[in-house]
Amino acid sequence: MNPFVINFTDKLAKFSDHWAPKVIAEMNDYQFKLVKIQGEFVWHSHADTDEVFILLDGEMTIELRDGSVQLKAGEMYVVPKSVEHKPVAQAECKIMLVEPCGIVNTGDAGGAYTAPNDVWI
Amino acid sequence: MNPFVINFTDKLAKFSDHWAPKVIAEMNDYQFKLVKIQGEFVWHSHADTDEVFILLDGEMTIELRDGSVQLKAGEMYVVPKSVEHKPVAQAECKIMLVEPCGIVNTGDAGGAYTAPNDVWI
Repeated sequence: MNPFVINFTDKLAKFSDHWAPKVIAEMNDYQFKLVKIQGEFVWHSHADTDEVFILLDGEMTIELRDGSVQLKAGEMYVVPKSVEHKPVAQAECKIMLVEPCGIVNTGDAGGAYTAPNDVWI
Repeated sequence: MNPFVINFTDKLAKFSDHWAPKVIAEMNDYQFKLVKIQGEFVWHSHADTDEVFILLDGEMTIELRDGSVQLKAGEMYVVPKSVEHKPVAQAECKIMLVEPCGIVNTGDAGGAYTAPNDVWI
């Protein structure tokens, strides 16, 4: 297999921690990251950028201050810049995020869920 | 269902033409596009940007001047800026492209396969 082909199943097998995005590809100054989530994340927003969630496996809810969004595998959602959101998943859910390089997972909120940035697998 | 949730199966059911990307989402100044391909495209490159191929269904080859890349559903590939490439699919293949707004499908090559830009579904 060409080493530059990125296989989601292979990449997902390389880690098991939750809420810690791993970079799998870069396009210009944007990154594609895989993350496994389970439970409730913190409310946060990203002041300077939209953020894309692409569901690879499982189901999740993105809570918003004015409602919530239900997502399942084969669906995507764009959280607009500056919009507060809180990801939640009852069971483990596997996601691909797309966002500019340098974005921290907890955005403006910080705290214990803040993961190291730019970790490649 | 939240109207802003994008379901790939639903969106793919909305068109049947080949080699004509349809926009399904925008993130900052980037777009996510679905395209169905079959047969051989033209050699081309994009002078100013990388281009991401995410395979949703089927198989394809991206021919490069120094080799080729085989891709199947659940895999992705980043064609670097300025690198000449020719997408090929024996059977119909369904792809999501990620690239900056304004990118034309045939890049520098033009010709009969050039599709209208910024067509949303």
